[in-house]
Amino acid sequence: MRGFSQSIAFLRESPTRKIDAIREKLKRENKDIINLAAGQPGIPPPIEVRSMLARQLVEVGGMELYGYSPSQGIMELREAISEDLRRLGGIEVDPNNIVVTAGGQEGMFATFMTILNPGDEVILLDPTYFGYKPIIEYFGGRIKRLGLSLNEGFRVDVEKLKELITNRTKALVIVSPDNPTGNVIDRETARAIADLAIDRDFWIVSDEAYRTLIYEGEHTYMYRYAPEHVISINTFSKDPGIPGWRLGFVYGPSDVIPRLKLAVEEMTYCPPVIAQKFVTMYLKSEVRLRHLRHIIEEYRSRRDTAIKALREYLPEARFVTPKGSMFIFTDLSRYIRDSEKLAELLLEKYGVALVPGTYFSDIYKSAIRISFVVESPERIREGIRRIAEAIDKYGGSI
Amino acid sequence: MRGFSQSIAFLRESPTRKIDAIREKLKRENKDIINLAAGQPGIPPPIEVRSMLARQLVEVGGMELYGYSPSQGIMELREAISEDLRRLGGIEVDPNNIVVTAGGQEGMFATFMTILNPGDEVILLDPTYFGYKPIIEYFGGRIKRLGLSLNEGFRVDVEKLKELITNRTKALVIVSPDNPTGNVIDRETARAIADLAIDRDFWIVSDEAYRTLIYEGEHTYMYRYAPEHVISINTFSKDPGIPGWRLGFVYGPSDVIPRLKLAVEEMTYCPPVIAQKFVTMYLKSEVRLRHLRHIIEEYRSRRDTAIKALREYLPEARFVTPKGSMFIFTDLSRYIRDSEKLAELLLEKYGVALVPGTYFSDIYKSAIRISFVVESPERIREGIRRIAEAIDKYGGSI
Repeated sequence: MRGFSQSIAFLRESPTRKIDAIREKLKRENKDIINLAAGQPGIPPPIEVRSMLARQLVEVGGMELYGYSPSQGIMELREAISEDLRRLGGIEVDPNNIVVTAGGQEGMFATFMTILNPGDEVILLDPTYFGYKPIIEYFGGRIKRLGLSLNEGFRVDVEKLKELITNRTKALVIVSPDNPTGNVIDRETARAIADLAIDRDFWIVSDEAYRTLIYEGEHTYMYRYAPEHVISINTFSKDPGIPGWRLGFVYGPSDVIPRLKLAVEEMTYCPPVIAQKFVTMYLKSEVRLRHLRHIIEEYRSRRDTAIKALREYLPEARFVTPKGSMFIFTDLSRYIRDSEKLAELLLEKYGVALVPGTYFSDIYKSAIRISFVVESPERIREGIRRIAEAIDKYGGSI
Repeated sequence: MRGFSQSIAFLRESPTRKIDAIREKLKRENKDIINLAAGQPGIPPPIEVRSMLARQLVEVGGMELYGYSPSQGIMELREAISEDLRRLGGIEVDPNNIVVTAGGQEGMFATFMTILNPGDEVILLDPTYFGYKPIIEYFGGRIKRLGLSLNEGFRVDVEKLKELITNRTKALVIVSPDNPTGNVIDRETARAIADLAIDRDFWIVSDEAYRTLIYEGEHTYMYRYAPEHVISINTFSKDPGIPGWRLGFVYGPSDVIPRLKLAVEEMTYCPPVIAQKFVTMYLKSEVRLRHLRHIIEEYRSRRDTAIKALREYLPEARFVTPKGSMFIFTDLSRYIRDSEKLAELLLEKYGVALVPGTYFSDIYKSAIRISFVVESPERIREGIRRIAEAIDKYGGSI
């Protein structure tokens, strides 16, 4: 009998896809939209590496650039990733413990495909990246949420975390640097969480998509504190900035990696080779650190513009200055109640796109996520000014 | 508690990956291997399109080439695919009924993710492409096999097929042009199968990876005969020949496509954009038909070389001249019993790689799959000569 999988009913369109669609529609109608909703960077990868790839496309014969790669990824790339983790993070990850994936999304899907059984419990922070919920539910997992307090800088309270752990706890997801809050987990908290994971024997799914986009302090590699309990999910979407090319990687202990490799092989056979070649050149190039410094300086400056504008136009907005990632998670509860209505209003009447807090949180229903990486400082200011204008007019009613 | 998914245990490394690994190892030891095992083409995509992409990499600014695309694929590409299906096949497929995927593999995985519930029955032909079994088993499907007879040209006996249909039959998988037999389904059989699918209401999963690699006759588009019951899986790995870049597409009726799109979005967020741009240019270029004619002529000539060599060196070998795809499925039961042993022997002692029939079949355990698209005619002849040499020496004992 024809028909469909019952599990597929757990899947929903990514909420930002809906915003993208409206934004595209308004663009086609020649409406100028200030994009504070973007989940992808605004600066393309360095021209030096693009030129190298361009030359190869013309000059390299045979199937070298076009054929399949090993499903775990090209060895030279995995070695370059291992070297990058050593250089930037001081951690030792064997290239055989790395699986290259078709983006961070495949890394997330493959991770839960590899570890989850129906009925397993997974702890998510609140707020957190909205991509995890549908995947966990698709695989039959049960979600428990640990609420984070803005007043405490979105710090994980390990004592409260302990109360959520049961015999069914399979994993805890930590996104750091965080989407949406920009929070970077500190070493002390990381160590306490790692000790708990070892003691109670659960997985830490450590989403480090923004590990190189740090504006103050440094990234904490969870792997350092619990190498046998951490599955680390990474992407090249943010740095060097090829989200559409779909390349990321996962690393973890030797029992999980061969299984995760099989999951990835079954889903996509091998990661995209052209992106693998490109990132190998990037990571091994002397341009790499220079490009990184460039995008960090640029994004930091745009972040500071956004913060200044928030303080100026929305003095009652509450937020924690993001130490990393691309977002300011801004609580507007002193102005409005319903962030979805605000987002709708802003997009349709004020030409400003942003993501409502409800997409990330059951608690912060009056918050918005402001992305500061794709628009110019002037337009970021103008976007925030328009938020204030909208609130001024409609604030009481939404 | 740490640990793994039980379903993941259904996944195994692709058997050809094992051969690839041994082949790579021998290569590193500087052993020259004649590759009759390849599942990917030997001719790279046309230089004209590669040059166009190279120029764009250098000249196009901003995130245009690097950003995310819609998860269903770029509209311009879906329109070009629709036009290509009209031009080559005379079928009308709305661009909204097409989902672009990260290769045919993602199309396969997403298809069964979308339709299968545990306990559903799926009918596979024997022999057939080995990629389907692990996916179906992963999703809890039960496989029934319909044996095909070499003497009848691997034709599907629709009366025998009927006997396998039950109330639990969810799908039938048809690979045409076929991997491994090169058989192309004829219109009459296609229509009879389509009528049965409509009558008994099951899905036809129509794998058309090799639809443009036809040496005699023409490709039969199953969609024509049962548009509401066919999910068609396609790839750009063979034509224009970018297997490593991971791009394919699925088309089907309007109830399946939105669900399949969600599955793909959850797995990889969007198909690789650089490959999407490349294939869009290819399909819209006047080079497209010229390139296709070129590779067909070249592969046909290599196929004929292989057939001539088989007749000369292995006169008792039984096979059906492939009308499409890249393989000759050759029954050696008059010489040997165990094709896996033969393949091992050939790789290690005779420097010839090929895929044993057991990977495709529970019936044809003495068959081998000979790929004729990556080696020169001289080396194809030499490879087949070595098969005869090995059989001459070891034939009685394996």
